[in-house]
Amino acid sequence: MELAHLQRLMEDTYGERDRARGVAAAVAWLAEEVGELAQAARKGGPHERTHEIGDVLAWVATLANLLGVDLEEAAARYAHGCPKCGAVPCRC
Amino acid sequence: MELAHLQRLMEDTYGERDRARGVAAAVAWLAEEVGELAQAARKGGPHERTHEIGDVLAWVATLANLLGVDLEEAAARYAHGCPKCGAVPCRC
Repeated sequence: MELAHLQRLMEDTYGERDRARGVAAAVAWLAEEVGELAQAARKGGPHERTHEIGDVLAWVATLANLLGVDLEEAAARYAHGCPKCGAVPCRC
Repeated sequence: MELAHLQRLMEDTYGERDRARGVAAAVAWLAEEVGELAQAARKGGPHERTHEIGDVLAWVATLANLLGVDLEEAAARYAHGCPKCGAVPCRC
């Protein structure tokens, strides 16, 4: 799935409601989902880990929508190796 | 960019080092980057917001690599509307 497609899916599915709740609510939801992912990483199984990674991705895409950030542009920072040293693998 | 490509980029660029540091370190880095994104959402400009969204995406992809999670499979949870109600837009 393209990042742009994920971003559009989130807009179509939740955009109107997300805009009504606002940016601070989306940040809080993202933090909650990162907490659930942390727990799944510590003691979850494969299904739970995949589920929580998906939820975190969804909230990152939602927050990008609310902030007017293009996920493709954001990910492009890593498209040519480490953004700091430019190497693959990173040599920082 | 495909999610699978982002995941591979992170593996190629940081995989060896990430495995040496382990899952808990990646969870801590992700939490740190989410904090930076929260700050950028509150008072940052467009460049900073895009930068921080990119860093959070990168750490989600890294954590997926360490946990053996396929980002494409994780995102597929949202491919057909809300995973809970199945509707677009969500009617939960």
